[in-house]
Amino acid sequence: MPAEPAPARPGRGRRPAAEVRAAVLAAAGTMLLENGLRDITFEKVAARAGASKMTLYKWWPSPGALALDAYFAATEQTLAFHDTGDLAADLARQLHSFVTFLTSREHGPVIAELVGAAQSDPDLATALAERYTLPRRALAVARLRTALDAGQLRPGTDLESVVDQLWGACYHRLLMPGLPLDTDFTDTLVRNLLSGIRP
Amino acid sequence: MPAEPAPARPGRGRRPAAEVRAAVLAAAGTMLLENGLRDITFEKVAARAGASKMTLYKWWPSPGALALDAYFAATEQTLAFHDTGDLAADLARQLHSFVTFLTSREHGPVIAELVGAAQSDPDLATALAERYTLPRRALAVARLRTALDAGQLRPGTDLESVVDQLWGACYHRLLMPGLPLDTDFTDTLVRNLLSGIRP
Repeated sequence: MPAEPAPARPGRGRRPAAEVRAAVLAAAGTMLLENGLRDITFEKVAARAGASKMTLYKWWPSPGALALDAYFAATEQTLAFHDTGDLAADLARQLHSFVTFLTSREHGPVIAELVGAAQSDPDLATALAERYTLPRRALAVARLRTALDAGQLRPGTDLESVVDQLWGACYHRLLMPGLPLDTDFTDTLVRNLLSGIRP
Repeated sequence: MPAEPAPARPGRGRRPAAEVRAAVLAAAGTMLLENGLRDITFEKVAARAGASKMTLYKWWPSPGALALDAYFAATEQTLAFHDTGDLAADLARQLHSFVTFLTSREHGPVIAELVGAAQSDPDLATALAERYTLPRRALAVARLRTALDAGQLRPGTDLESVVDQLWGACYHRLLMPGLPLDTDFTDTLVRNLLSGIRP
């Protein structure tokens, strides 16, 4: 007697890999915002995305790594860098989006939780650096390099340190709170750094 | 038959409060460096300091608050601000001590663990802000205010934001690591901020 065919699983095995990946990242991103890092398991994300758990195991070394990729994907549009040629205005605009994002009820606690948990979880720390912090840093440095090449920054300026003095300063107020984290603050950061605070 | 007298407990009930407090902070500070935050319980610290557990309950709202007071006390000398009248040199000197401290095997992991744990522990977050972050911030602002009053900073400079762009930038590299956290970096931070990065 021939075996019955396996029940049809809509979409399974038919979608191109890029589409499955996008669905997984979208599902993980939503779950991260809803319930935080503890909710991200390969099993739950696979179920929500209609993907195979084995695919997730193959693509990501850990649920933390998946969570970070999802977070990066979810923030990419909002945190995009613009280039109108006016460095001060472009930085101000990106930093406004950044702090609005960081201080939103939805997103602020997620990145704070991820950075917090990474302090006592070496695998998560690696995933955070490789899949979020360093890629985002590279995007900021690329925008600053355009300005440097255009003669809008002093020759020899250490662009990486500028990242710490703009976005890092915001993370400082997020992670060690007590003072306002708002657009007035980021405008002050840009002014201080571009013009210097000496008389 | 008369009860036997309780065995003598050396020092108990005889030391002045300030001395007991110092002993408790020293014990908690050592334990924090040895085994991290998880080792700090009122019972263990009291035993090590030869103090009464009840005294600790009376003086601190939580073991986390005690840990933060101990950490503040342990760092106070090393992180002192100098005032030679030369702001750039004084900032450089303090920041050298600060990053040497942050990157030492002994101390770096302690503050990273405290900040990390505070992200998911509101009581610890309050203790961190009230007993460490904000007091240390006030010390930095006081040194900057002297410079402002002496005309060494541009009138109207937002001194709090300077704290985020110097010490906050260092915390950024500690908590979201991947780039060097050393004295070259802090010298760059001071130079960028005092002189500005515009041509």
